[in-house]
Amino acid sequence: MPVNAQYRLAARPAAGLPKDTDWQYTEEAVPAPGDGEFLVKVRYLSLDPAMRTWMNAGRSYVPPVGIGEVMRAAGIAEVVESRHPGFRAGQSVFGTFGVQDFAVSDGKGVTIVDTSLAPAPTFLGALGISGITAYFGLFDVGRPEPGQTVAVSAAAGSVGIVVGQLAKIHGCRVVGIAGGPGKCRMLVEEYGFDAAVDHRAGNVRADLKEHAPDGIDVFFDNVGGDVLEAALARLARGARIVLSGAVSQYNSTEGPRGPANYMQLLVRRASMTGFVFSDYAERYPEAIAALAGWLGEGKLKSREDVVEGGIAKFPETLLKLFRGENTGKLVLAL
Amino acid sequence: MPVNAQYRLAARPAAGLPKDTDWQYTEEAVPAPGDGEFLVKVRYLSLDPAMRTWMNAGRSYVPPVGIGEVMRAAGIAEVVESRHPGFRAGQSVFGTFGVQDFAVSDGKGVTIVDTSLAPAPTFLGALGISGITAYFGLFDVGRPEPGQTVAVSAAAGSVGIVVGQLAKIHGCRVVGIAGGPGKCRMLVEEYGFDAAVDHRAGNVRADLKEHAPDGIDVFFDNVGGDVLEAALARLARGARIVLSGAVSQYNSTEGPRGPANYMQLLVRRASMTGFVFSDYAERYPEAIAALAGWLGEGKLKSREDVVEGGIAKFPETLLKLFRGENTGKLVLAL
Repeated sequence: MPVNAQYRLAARPAAGLPKDTDWQYTEEAVPAPGDGEFLVKVRYLSLDPAMRTWMNAGRSYVPPVGIGEVMRAAGIAEVVESRHPGFRAGQSVFGTFGVQDFAVSDGKGVTIVDTSLAPAPTFLGALGISGITAYFGLFDVGRPEPGQTVAVSAAAGSVGIVVGQLAKIHGCRVVGIAGGPGKCRMLVEEYGFDAAVDHRAGNVRADLKEHAPDGIDVFFDNVGGDVLEAALARLARGARIVLSGAVSQYNSTEGPRGPANYMQLLVRRASMTGFVFSDYAERYPEAIAALAGWLGEGKLKSREDVVEGGIAKFPETLLKLFRGENTGKLVLAL
Repeated sequence: MPVNAQYRLAARPAAGLPKDTDWQYTEEAVPAPGDGEFLVKVRYLSLDPAMRTWMNAGRSYVPPVGIGEVMRAAGIAEVVESRHPGFRAGQSVFGTFGVQDFAVSDGKGVTIVDTSLAPAPTFLGALGISGITAYFGLFDVGRPEPGQTVAVSAAAGSVGIVVGQLAKIHGCRVVGIAGGPGKCRMLVEEYGFDAAVDHRAGNVRADLKEHAPDGIDVFFDNVGGDVLEAALARLARGARIVLSGAVSQYNSTEGPRGPANYMQLLVRRASMTGFVFSDYAERYPEAIAALAGWLGEGKLKSREDVVEGGIAKFPETLLKLFRGENTGKLVLAL
């Protein structure tokens, strides 16, 4: 008889990386769907930097996860049993089902995905939230013009790797910032970035000066901290900084830190704008159609880093994300 | 025989407030204008927070003042002798003549002001750069809508006091942030602000919550530091932060500090945009016509804090500015 294995939030990490004791592993009976509901088996769990912010008490762009609640997570699942007119057994669906093997849903926020178009994990990557985030953040908030220089941090991460490729498709010069020579080589050789800067080498400012000689017109930031300061020091006049995340700060033990040189925004007549992908929900079809088109033409490559081993590997896989050990979209196969 | 008394930059302050030893007092013969030039006697010197940034080595939005050079300053002067077809003796002019009694100019960046419209110091305040900065920063960068809440820091300063009045004219709710109960009372009782928050009382966050219950739609920041962080914590969704200055940071002995909670820009889908008034030079006539109109109708009051005593008082008057001891535009009468 199958059980529903789950990870629940046991405690809020005061600061720093989540610890094993912040999680509670539980097993429950597999729930039964009521009228207008359906049961899913989660196949692939999405590991996202924002998860760290959901563990904190303060409200971010979504409420925090409550103590004792199943940890929030998006995923790709298969409908097992349906009493909902819009879903039928066997369909693959995307939704926020949580860190658990099974979930019951009323269909809100759940979309059916066509796995004949692309493998299921791609719907968590280039054809999922990562791709949608990259698309609206770059084109709507960053508004690069062909020929301009776009820089992106966490460039080998799930969002960054799409941002860089979209900017190339758009005719921009693209500089990625990533951790380690292997990722940097990959960005240039496999994903067509014009240059990549290894922030672990410790010369980000000088390297950006070399690779963005006319300054950065659009900086898509997933990282914050020193990398954001280095980019601020290298802005072109009228530059746009797209604030998509600040993964370097989420686990900081000293508390978050703002960019000391933020007044470069004045010197460069630049802007820094925050956005959340879900505000563009009405335009998802536009983004997905464009992304799927480029994927089909081979102009865009999706990259997923799929960890096998089931739900028991959730806590350690999340740490892999915060240590920057993934390339592309980090996914846990259940 | 008159001499030209001057203050020159003797040394760059490493950090903190400028010291007496950072200045060199010099006297020179009054210069003679060549062909196409004119000689002015400076009457009123403009004291500006940005002066502190010009003393540093790094390029800001203008190059730094060189060691040994006459300190840069704007002022209102009277043409004493002219060999320039566009200017004649007796005219009042605005220009960047430096911290000195006399200057020779070729007319570049110099405009004639009509002191029959308003007293000369007003052309350094509401009808000068302060008013122009307030006008474009508020209306072009901040873009408030009637009924929205506008907050402004250094609200009793030369720019802030105009920003608040313009926002009131525009139909906004206006909250000023200033240092001390006297300034706060003045803003509400004499300048029509809806509320004023005394940042020296130490409850800026709670006070903003009280006076901006629906959040801040436009924050016009002249200050940075804790005040900026308090405003970031109180943004309405889609808010615009106008970066006009960061006077709390210019004299910091610990180096400048960025807003630790800048990711509120993401949570609130907000933006922070830097601007420099001089980018709007082509539209100055629009701003000055509007400002002069409101001044004439009594809807806008100019406020100048005129210090008497001549050029010898320059170093200590500049400190008065950084200690927040002025209300309105700080001007030194020569």
